[in-house]
Amino acid sequence: MTPENRQAAAQTAVARCLALAACTEVQGETTRLYLCDAMREVHALLRGWMEAAGMAVALDAAGNLRGLYEAADTGARQTLLIGSHLDTVPNAGAFDGVLGVVLGVAAIEALEGKRLPYAIEVLGFAEEEGVRFGKPFLGSLALVGRLDEAVLALEDRKGVSVREALTGYGLDAGALGRAAIDCERTLGYLEVHIEQGPVLEQEDARLGVVAAIAGQTRAQLRFLGQANHAGTTPMCLRHDALAAAAAWVSAVEERARATAGLVGTVGRFEVRPGAGNVIPAEVVATLDLRHPDDAVRAAAASELLARAMSEAEARGVRCEYALTLEQAAVPMHAGLTELLQRAAWQAGHSAGLMTSGAGHDAMMLAPAVPAAMLFVRSPGGVSHHPEETVRVADVEAALETMVEFLELLREDEAGLEISGEMGTQHA
Amino acid sequence: MTPENRQAAAQTAVARCLALAACTEVQGETTRLYLCDAMREVHALLRGWMEAAGMAVALDAAGNLRGLYEAADTGARQTLLIGSHLDTVPNAGAFDGVLGVVLGVAAIEALEGKRLPYAIEVLGFAEEEGVRFGKPFLGSLALVGRLDEAVLALEDRKGVSVREALTGYGLDAGALGRAAIDCERTLGYLEVHIEQGPVLEQEDARLGVVAAIAGQTRAQLRFLGQANHAGTTPMCLRHDALAAAAAWVSAVEERARATAGLVGTVGRFEVRPGAGNVIPAEVVATLDLRHPDDAVRAAAASELLARAMSEAEARGVRCEYALTLEQAAVPMHAGLTELLQRAAWQAGHSAGLMTSGAGHDAMMLAPAVPAAMLFVRSPGGVSHHPEETVRVADVEAALETMVEFLELLREDEAGLEISGEMGTQHA
Repeated sequence: MTPENRQAAAQTAVARCLALAACTEVQGETTRLYLCDAMREVHALLRGWMEAAGMAVALDAAGNLRGLYEAADTGARQTLLIGSHLDTVPNAGAFDGVLGVVLGVAAIEALEGKRLPYAIEVLGFAEEEGVRFGKPFLGSLALVGRLDEAVLALEDRKGVSVREALTGYGLDAGALGRAAIDCERTLGYLEVHIEQGPVLEQEDARLGVVAAIAGQTRAQLRFLGQANHAGTTPMCLRHDALAAAAAWVSAVEERARATAGLVGTVGRFEVRPGAGNVIPAEVVATLDLRHPDDAVRAAAASELLARAMSEAEARGVRCEYALTLEQAAVPMHAGLTELLQRAAWQAGHSAGLMTSGAGHDAMMLAPAVPAAMLFVRSPGGVSHHPEETVRVADVEAALETMVEFLELLREDEAGLEISGEMGTQHA
Repeated sequence: MTPENRQAAAQTAVARCLALAACTEVQGETTRLYLCDAMREVHALLRGWMEAAGMAVALDAAGNLRGLYEAADTGARQTLLIGSHLDTVPNAGAFDGVLGVVLGVAAIEALEGKRLPYAIEVLGFAEEEGVRFGKPFLGSLALVGRLDEAVLALEDRKGVSVREALTGYGLDAGALGRAAIDCERTLGYLEVHIEQGPVLEQEDARLGVVAAIAGQTRAQLRFLGQANHAGTTPMCLRHDALAAAAAWVSAVEERARATAGLVGTVGRFEVRPGAGNVIPAEVVATLDLRHPDDAVRAAAASELLARAMSEAEARGVRCEYALTLEQAAVPMHAGLTELLQRAAWQAGHSAGLMTSGAGHDAMMLAPAVPAAMLFVRSPGGVSHHPEETVRVADVEAALETMVEFLELLREDEAGLEISGEMGTQHA
């Protein structure tokens, strides 16, 4: 590819993302939940681009769009997966998920018909955001054989189950087994995604390579004090739920600031009864803690939950909590990650290792096959918002890295050993 | 009065409060807003008790029920006012306000027809809580000639003005001037009220004498940060509105605890957008500061508002605030307060001086005439709640104190000098 070609390809990729953003359930915004009608338009556009690039396209039983680009030797047993998701949060931007699928197609186009020793399957996952059924990663779960009966029974707000939604979309839930990949024949999984955070921008870098997806602890806390008159109750006789909870919020902030790589957030925080002259009786709050090292996260979580109890107790306030999520960190595959970083360098870009604080489809694939992730800078760190954007030059850098990655994987015998390693590592 | 009579009178007073609590706009609770129909039932019951005790009863143009017990010499120029309010907050208890009016009647009954050198007017104020029109003290404002055009123009939630409500109740807003008292001929104002706080219970005391009603500063604050992804935004790049506001809440608590007599409350505290995995962008909070010394309160207010700005600035968060109330402290009249305390002692009760953290009708009367307030213990400190209660023995102590107060005021020539003093002090 000439520099001009690469720039044009990046511009095309961005234009395609914007075209797909016009496929929406809600006019005037970009909203595509799992198995919505607007997704059919997305599939029609992608199918056209995929077929034009020489791929065989199919919809699997979970609603994932899959384009297969055969190897030079059609008997070759190994396939590289490149993908991301096609669903969105309500009133989303144009690039979250979609960019990774469109760049998968662009990487095939860049081959200009040339075949490799391995096949490439470009995956447009049907569901990742968890909006419709309250559970994320439904598309990639199907690929690893984990879209099971329990998931099929989940219901959306209208009481429609996943199974019913699949049937209504014309899909056969009974054929879900055939959507699962054969791990033995999978070379690896590559996902390109916008960073959705400010780190690359802060570092003035176009790209980053994900070393691990952070583990998460989420908890819900309830501080129960006693409502009382703000004027007639001396400080020493108060049981102020807000005072206890506020002291704890400061402890969360302080602990996260003091620990490299730890992020701690109290996002939901509801105070009752909420009148200016009444001492707060109750606070319901959430805790969200993330770190790439599970032991660091676990230590912070147990310390901060104990701190909530002690701040409450000091004020005669009761505190109870429930853990709502304990998600271990997911490291990316060391060999494939190194290959991806080398590809970026050879394409002329620095791509430092970083942690992903957000969850991605790669989390579901990584326990089954070698997985690697490339982050593209998010201007302003903005995502899940109509103003989410990307720079064309950054997209171009990502595409160049992908092209180089395909080449390195072809050249390097080590590439084919990767899946063997993984077979034991992830048994 | 014999001890048996006093106990029976206290039981009667409590029973009357409970009977009045059954007069309500909302069945199953006690809710009486300004000029509601249920208030007519309250007036009918009180009128019966007042007339039986030898009082001449009238409704003034603001809707205040007024029972006059003439002096021995009907030409006597001096009148003692005893009163409190008859309206309630929504779903109220039975004693807030009402107890003071019922005990005014009981004090007259205890005279058993005996006349004093001064007249006594028992006042049942029509409005004190500020619920219907968003402005409190409408009944006592009329007594001091301050229920003016601006107040008459206030509207309730249905768009009905005070003026229209008065007319609808059969009252003549044009005659409000005649509701005002003649300060020169007023000996003083005595209000008995439940404490609505836990201090007397904590001190194991039946009664307290109010030295001053605390001044108040109220403010509304808005912390404006930036919403962002809880997983992808490092601590150092956050603008967390909740973290800033929480640090400030702790500062309010700490400052109030460190300053004798100061109470500081953040009662309303709303966090947006309020999702567990999103860094809070905005907090709207209120500050309520009260202290009997205006200078102490002003110093704390300015320090805490500055602290809000600095906690915000330290996190790249904007903070703005607006003062919504600056109410100076209102001292009770020194001479009348001393007389009230002496009356309690002579009746055999300790009644230490205390600050009222809540506002009362006495605040409106005190700038015009000598005013004194007696607090009755609130079990559990509970008020503005159906479980609000009083102990019969405490009510008995209050009634004994009132009877003794009337006697001291009769005996003591100083009593008649009080209003002379006040005439200059409050000119």
